[in-house]
Amino acid sequence: MLLPAPIQNLMDAFSRLPGIGPKTASRLVFYLLRNNDHLAQDLAQALKVLKSGTAFCKTCFNITEAGREHCQICASQERDGGLLCVVEEPMDVLAFERMGGYRGKYHVLHGAISPIEGVGPEDLKIRELVARIRQENVHEIILATNPSLEGDATAMYLDQQLNGFDLQITRLARGLPMGGDIEYADQNTLLRALAGRQKMN
Amino acid sequence: MLLPAPIQNLMDAFSRLPGIGPKTASRLVFYLLRNNDHLAQDLAQALKVLKSGTAFCKTCFNITEAGREHCQICASQERDGGLLCVVEEPMDVLAFERMGGYRGKYHVLHGAISPIEGVGPEDLKIRELVARIRQENVHEIILATNPSLEGDATAMYLDQQLNGFDLQITRLARGLPMGGDIEYADQNTLLRALAGRQKMN
Repeated sequence: MLLPAPIQNLMDAFSRLPGIGPKTASRLVFYLLRNNDHLAQDLAQALKVLKSGTAFCKTCFNITEAGREHCQICASQERDGGLLCVVEEPMDVLAFERMGGYRGKYHVLHGAISPIEGVGPEDLKIRELVARIRQENVHEIILATNPSLEGDATAMYLDQQLNGFDLQITRLARGLPMGGDIEYADQNTLLRALAGRQKMN
Repeated sequence: MLLPAPIQNLMDAFSRLPGIGPKTASRLVFYLLRNNDHLAQDLAQALKVLKSGTAFCKTCFNITEAGREHCQICASQERDGGLLCVVEEPMDVLAFERMGGYRGKYHVLHGAISPIEGVGPEDLKIRELVARIRQENVHEIILATNPSLEGDATAMYLDQQLNGFDLQITRLARGLPMGGDIEYADQNTLLRALAGRQKMN
């Protein structure tokens, strides 16, 4: 059976999203068809203004509202500009802010070095990070790239690039995740947890 | 941190979809932000015309393109109008059509009887089904409601309502699903499979 074009088109569009296969896509479409509180229209409207309504902060490259030069964090007087947390994606900033305890600023690389995917250092906001450290009075850089092959490679590259500067370079601790189970911890995590063991105090 | 309004709005809209929580919603939003092949715009456009571009078939209540009186299946000369498969939702029609072996027509109830959710027989397209049987030359009704409490209640109700008509009323077989594993089959399924066992031939 040929599905009506409006349904097929929406299914196709949903299927292009990550983690949404044809079955989920058709479930979403039929849910929207049955739904009577304007969800389809709300979603369409929100999608329409997503890109036109947002921009990247000119300093840290986090996402901010269109028309602003700087994001709320860079513009804030209450954040410590001497402490920079370097992350891969804007979503990582969100994770740190949800945590609530961090009072420094950020720098978003927009990716990680990955020869397999053809992403080199020049594709990331590394030049901008170096320029920023040169201009601003930064005393510590926290490398908060992902604990993956690409994230580690990026952190090592950054460490080399920032070698000549008078600043402290730190990395996030590796070890057992909270609420985790030693029995189910993978070998690498356990190795890191053992190597990084700390004195009880 | 307050997220930019366009991002927060889209996350909120995505979160209203079934099976999409706040984490998935934010992943989708940031994917769309990074995506450069107009996916957000395509999705917005497809959503906009979803409801205006579709309508229900006046005969079987399946979904069809707006402006058509009847769906392709009801309009087709090649389908056996004497055989009606009664399903709960348009998605069920899709499942039967994907299967490919069915040459009859359909009737979509748009739900199942569920006292808990306040859905009674009068909320479903049952009156329309009875009228259809009265007018058309139907010789068999296949009750293809879901194998659930609500689906079974609906099938039983329909069986009673269609009692006076000169037609065969059948139900889909219950038993072990293909590719399934007896070891993991639930008790009810195994009971049904045993009760419905058939002679080898």
